[in-house]
Amino acid sequence: MNKNYQKLIKSLHQKKNRQAENLFLVEGTKSVVELLQSNLPIHALFYTENFYATYHKYLAKNTAHQAITSQEILQQQGTLQSNDGAIAVVHIPKPTTFSLKNYALALDDIRDPGNLGAMIRIADWYGISQIICSQNTVDWYNPKVIIASMGSFLRIQPHYCNLADFLTNIETTTYGMFLEGANLHNVEFAKQGIIIVGNESNGISSEVAKTIQQKITIQRFGEAESLNAAMATAIVCDNLRRSL
Amino acid sequence: MNKNYQKLIKSLHQKKNRQAENLFLVEGTKSVVELLQSNLPIHALFYTENFYATYHKYLAKNTAHQAITSQEILQQQGTLQSNDGAIAVVHIPKPTTFSLKNYALALDDIRDPGNLGAMIRIADWYGISQIICSQNTVDWYNPKVIIASMGSFLRIQPHYCNLADFLTNIETTTYGMFLEGANLHNVEFAKQGIIIVGNESNGISSEVAKTIQQKITIQRFGEAESLNAAMATAIVCDNLRRSL
Repeated sequence: MNKNYQKLIKSLHQKKNRQAENLFLVEGTKSVVELLQSNLPIHALFYTENFYATYHKYLAKNTAHQAITSQEILQQQGTLQSNDGAIAVVHIPKPTTFSLKNYALALDDIRDPGNLGAMIRIADWYGISQIICSQNTVDWYNPKVIIASMGSFLRIQPHYCNLADFLTNIETTTYGMFLEGANLHNVEFAKQGIIIVGNESNGISSEVAKTIQQKITIQRFGEAESLNAAMATAIVCDNLRRSL
Repeated sequence: MNKNYQKLIKSLHQKKNRQAENLFLVEGTKSVVELLQSNLPIHALFYTENFYATYHKYLAKNTAHQAITSQEILQQQGTLQSNDGAIAVVHIPKPTTFSLKNYALALDDIRDPGNLGAMIRIADWYGISQIICSQNTVDWYNPKVIIASMGSFLRIQPHYCNLADFLTNIETTTYGMFLEGANLHNVEFAKQGIIIVGNESNGISSEVAKTIQQKITIQRFGEAESLNAAMATAIVCDNLRRSL
């Protein structure tokens, strides 16, 4: 990996550089292998000899700049503590126009990249292919989001917007998680809708809350004060699918 | 905080020292406040002036060694990147004899401390007060486990054992998550039982699998290859509570 690529990869740890270059990083064997099987355009690829030995058939078809490098370099330049696989530098896809299919998630200022990545993976498990994000939600192309999504970022479309405005203008059933809503186990979900997830500390903001038609609550049987936002999303998606 | 306590706190980052001293760390405002309201015996307490200003009424009642310290020292000695609250050095409670109440979780080599902490929090939310852990499951008193449990470690009892032997000898209904089990949405759970969760990469080991009476599966509607172990646990606990 030459110095210019080392510098590029390091720079893509930061949002402002990802936006300026319109590039992001995909790291680790599993994610890069899924990437190679998708049709996302790759700018450059770096992998270890071990990775090459196992996955060269995918590499041969790819026309991006490619080079073999060491595990040490992958770990020095990337964000993964342990990476004996690969790093890809990938073009950020053009945002598509949003048109609601069946269900979408809407995230009101989710700040933790691990949570966003987990939610992308959950959406992908439950066949929800769109995630609407408030402007202050963590960047979708943050390397930690991509890693936590375990390849699911390839199948889910993000849509960043002013969330309160967006929800005011869309015609569908909107559900939000609150402490004092209807018991999730009794909710009969509409055929189409949006599930709104609040910020990790502050929940759903007051502007967004005004646009929500049905407040729902995950019933508590013990004493924990709260559930993690990604866990709560998983539980709601499972109940949604059971009800549909 | 004097040098001896600084050394002690640093040493408790490691399992072998926690076991030798029979002490562990509780870090951060929320967890320490919950700790102070519990009856767990505390060995020493260090907090910032801000923490003291808000929580002195809990502190006055506590007879442990106490001292005001700076945020910098808490962050240098502890494991939290940001801690403007407190660190407590706490005696590890004596393990209690296991006797199954309603439901317990059993963890077959959960290795990630964040996952174990999240599972403790989920168990607490769903009123499951016992978690059985295989010997190779990450240490319950790992600081990252304690932090991720968000105070729920105070209400849930761990029981480390040879999991296959334990499950062979207990008389109750055992449920395990597999890729090819009964659809979770259709499972009618028994009044009492144990939910077995497999390792993050390898799932449930073959020795433990032999002891499982009912294989269950979280139905997939999309394309993600798998769900995170803690997410899967949350979804199963929710279905369990709905069925009971």
